Amino acid sequence: MKNSEDRDTNMAKTKTNNPGFYVGVDVGGTKILSALVDETGKIILRNKKKTRADRGGEQVLGRIYASIDELIAQSGCFPHDIKAIGLGVPGALDPGTGVVAFAPNLGWRNMPLKSLVEEKYSRPIFVDNDVNVGTWAEFKLGSGIGAQYLIGMFIGTGIGGGLVFEGKMFYGKSHGAGELGHMILREKGPKCSCGNKGCFEALASRTAIARDIEKEINKGKKSVLVAEGVESAQDMKSRALAEAYSAGDPLTRKVMDKAARYIGYAIAGLTNLLSPDVVVLGGGLVEAMQASYLDKIRAVVKKHAFAPSYKGLKIRPAMLGDDAGVLGAALIAVEGLKSKSA
Amino acid sequence: MKNSEDRDTNMAKTKTNNPGFYVGVDVGGTKILSALVDETGKIILRNKKKTRADRGGEQVLGRIYASIDELIAQSGCFPHDIKAIGLGVPGALDPGTGVVAFAPNLGWRNMPLKSLVEEKYSRPIFVDNDVNVGTWAEFKLGSGIGAQYLIGMFIGTGIGGGLVFEGKMFYGKSHGAGELGHMILREKGPKCSCGNKGCFEALASRTAIARDIEKEINKGKKSVLVAEGVESAQDMKSRALAEAYSAGDPLTRKVMDKAARYIGYAIAGLTNLLSPDVVVLGGGLVEAMQASYLDKIRAVVKKHAFAPSYKGLKIRPAMLGDDAGVLGAALIAVEGLKSKSA
Repeated sequence: MKNSEDRDTNMAKTKTNNPGFYVGVDVGGTKILSALVDETGKIILRNKKKTRADRGGEQVLGRIYASIDELIAQSGCFPHDIKAIGLGVPGALDPGTGVVAFAPNLGWRNMPLKSLVEEKYSRPIFVDNDVNVGTWAEFKLGSGIGAQYLIGMFIGTGIGGGLVFEGKMFYGKSHGAGELGHMILREKGPKCSCGNKGCFEALASRTAIARDIEKEINKGKKSVLVAEGVESAQDMKSRALAEAYSAGDPLTRKVMDKAARYIGYAIAGLTNLLSPDVVVLGGGLVEAMQASYLDKIRAVVKKHAFAPSYKGLKIRPAMLGDDAGVLGAALIAVEGLKSKSA
Repeated sequence: MKNSEDRDTNMAKTKTNNPGFYVGVDVGGTKILSALVDETGKIILRNKKKTRADRGGEQVLGRIYASIDELIAQSGCFPHDIKAIGLGVPGALDPGTGVVAFAPNLGWRNMPLKSLVEEKYSRPIFVDNDVNVGTWAEFKLGSGIGAQYLIGMFIGTGIGGGLVFEGKMFYGKSHGAGELGHMILREKGPKCSCGNKGCFEALASRTAIARDIEKEINKGKKSVLVAEGVESAQDMKSRALAEAYSAGDPLTRKVMDKAARYIGYAIAGLTNLLSPDVVVLGGGLVEAMQASYLDKIRAVVKKHAFAPSYKGLKIRPAMLGDDAGVLGAALIAVEGLKSKSA
């Protein structure tokens, strides 16, 4: 696609099987990932930039533009070759207006993201929460394909979730639905980043696991992590934890098995409440673990969920890894354009 | 309505504003309530019978028939004057097939309720879970009118719930969705009727409250309940508990305030997860309590739910009391007939 004439000829030829290209942007707290994606979800080209949120929210927006610009320039497309742009954002937002009410990791408050990006590129823009976007990607291209009632659960620094019911993202009244990390599962439990105590996230996220292991190490408990120089919670990355677990480190096992129990309780409660057919479990920590860890979680769910709702439930690991963000963002643009023209 | 000619004239006259009559049956573990209801939800006539589940599941079915027969006979209607019959059943069932997989309080297992009642009355029959039916009644006629994302929570012997999203009952994959009483809110908590430990129901139902008060009384704790001869859990009915609470009985206050905290945690978690606009709180115990108890629950929710999802959330007491069952059952018949003819 060197010029628009070529493109037009091309588009006319392949109109039915390749209706255009989309840009998906995964705006993270540390990096901005962009990708040029076709309508089927194939990634054609990628771009990666640091977010540099410390320089302020305006700068973050500028770096998003730079990422999209570079991507388009490298692709040889013209801006108008892009059918639509989708963005996944870690924050509270209204997908309808595209205003991000609050995204602390980006320094944004009441940022009219959709209208700004629309003005800049004159293309249809679609915006959603990053976890919704990841759930949507798993629904369209990953472990959630074919699900009627899908719960996406992503375990990492925090615990986030998304709900897809009957082919549609479930938003609830405030558009904030899916926040499954903040069900209170232990009264007076450990303090959560949200200010409450005993949230699921404060009991079973990687942050919670690392905190508990660090506490035990500080008390003098032995662990292979100490031998490897991983003594402080902030150094306990998913891979290090997964390796210590696989190596049979008793401390890591104890703490992570407790987390597996809580993950199981949470999924069991959600199963009784919503009767999903598929739960997709993703996020750095879960993806680093071996299959046997998921089996532990499944066993807890089986024991605690009602038999009719458990029957036929599939708990699957996420498939798309780091691509879920850009893919999902591009796919909400595909979907958004479809419903606009419908 | 003495004879069918009168009826026909009548029906022709009032065709637009009174399109017919419906029977709603609330099949409870101790009593069967039936009502003749018009399409707007006005109860015209009632019938009440004991369930006598101890005589077996076949007998229960016979008593449902007797209740409907008596109701119709007393009304002066002919069976074909009834547009449709709806039944609310305390058990796990498929509203599509109308087969009740399991209703322990009625002695039913794989009971093809819908087809049996259909055969008997040659009218369209609609069947749903009793709590769904109660939620539906509150949605159509009670505290849930106008809700887009409604959660019904009913606290009594157990804790049940129903979900109405965008004007439709939410069933999930197994039709069992709404079972919010069995989210595990305390690991190794008190034993629940479902076999698990620490379920919401085992922490905040009337049964749980009565169990905790009885335990303290047995340890020698003083309470106005003892003075009133209410010492065993099974005597602690909703009214007695509500009165002891109002009288400021310290033991009752302590135990019931703990339950209010758990109800608040549960609603906060559900608010973060589903972002409802209305939560209707019903059931014998909640309905017996004064408004200040609901305010305590609201305060816990406000403290623990995310601000954007809490904003605009209404937590309301149920309005329909014991009528919710028959009204909801009649209204699922109204609704079912509508979607059938649509």
